[in-house]
Amino acid sequence: MRIVGIDPGLRITGYGCVEGDPLRPSLVEAGVFRLGRRTGGEIAPIPDRLVELDSDLAELLGRTRPDALAVEVVFSHVKHPATAIAMAHARGVILLGAKRAGLPLIELRPAEIKKYLTGNGQAKKPQMQAAVRAVLRLPETPEPPDVADAIAIALCASSRSGVAPGFDAGGLLPSRGRGRRTKVRP
Amino acid sequence: MRIVGIDPGLRITGYGCVEGDPLRPSLVEAGVFRLGRRTGGEIAPIPDRLVELDSDLAELLGRTRPDALAVEVVFSHVKHPATAIAMAHARGVILLGAKRAGLPLIELRPAEIKKYLTGNGQAKKPQMQAAVRAVLRLPETPEPPDVADAIAIALCASSRSGVAPGFDAGGLLPSRGRGRRTKVRP
Repeated sequence: MRIVGIDPGLRITGYGCVEGDPLRPSLVEAGVFRLGRRTGGEIAPIPDRLVELDSDLAELLGRTRPDALAVEVVFSHVKHPATAIAMAHARGVILLGAKRAGLPLIELRPAEIKKYLTGNGQAKKPQMQAAVRAVLRLPETPEPPDVADAIAIALCASSRSGVAPGFDAGGLLPSRGRGRRTKVRP
Repeated sequence: MRIVGIDPGLRITGYGCVEGDPLRPSLVEAGVFRLGRRTGGEIAPIPDRLVELDSDLAELLGRTRPDALAVEVVFSHVKHPATAIAMAHARGVILLGAKRAGLPLIELRPAEIKKYLTGNGQAKKPQMQAAVRAVLRLPETPEPPDVADAIAIALCASSRSGVAPGFDAGGLLPSRGRGRRTKVRP
């Protein structure tokens, strides 16, 4: 079973692809999509970033060919509504792309992911980065934290036996290069 | 100038297309996309609804061929974060589709739209529905309110001389029928 975990964001979207026995998982590929970067330090408008995200995701799914896609559930009681609302734009595009690619969706609670990896549902980012590094025996700490978060989502999802209902296969995967990825390879 | 206004939602997305002189606008077409409806009263999972929305929007834009797309800005200080976060999933897909279709985006504040149509930035839904009906000399009140909201967005946007920067032309418009629209025709 090969699973892609995604940590959506309008500036940085983290991704991690893991496969194999949940007790001995291996990292296929992980990194971030940096969205909207323009020469001169400007940031592109949100619609442009969503087009990049859609394209980057399609390329990732075409390249890694996962069996499922995993994301965190979204809560309405959030500390930072502005961040959650911005993130939800990216999450909508991710869910659209996953469904178009015919992938089952696995949704996980943040506390469940943290507890699975560290034993502590309230673990902070450095703890999560260290845990991801340890579990996958990586030579370096995954940076930025968005990469570790995305890998953690994929690892926790791979520990689950089933996938959520409601998806059916179908759709197709365009695949086109962009060259804006930062990759962490095992 | 022909403008499509969109009021995004994961259950119901309203749309309204207007054109002509802002002082004497005419309605091209308006209605709602009802998303995720299944036989037996069930509602489809969010990714399925986003695929429907993406397809319905592409079909609408292919049919009406507008010069710009208008939406409300999103605020972080919202009364109902859960609704705003759900809506933002749909809004992300709308912005993606608009950009793909090469359309300029016009973003308007809700109070600006209400004031433009009723003189009152705090107008309630029935007031907005009545104002939209009066301005366009419609034989009936636009229902549901999502339709009136979308038409109001388009009307207010058409009163503006310019469009927001950041979009460039390009992209293409797939067009495929779905038969889930409720239309209001002038």
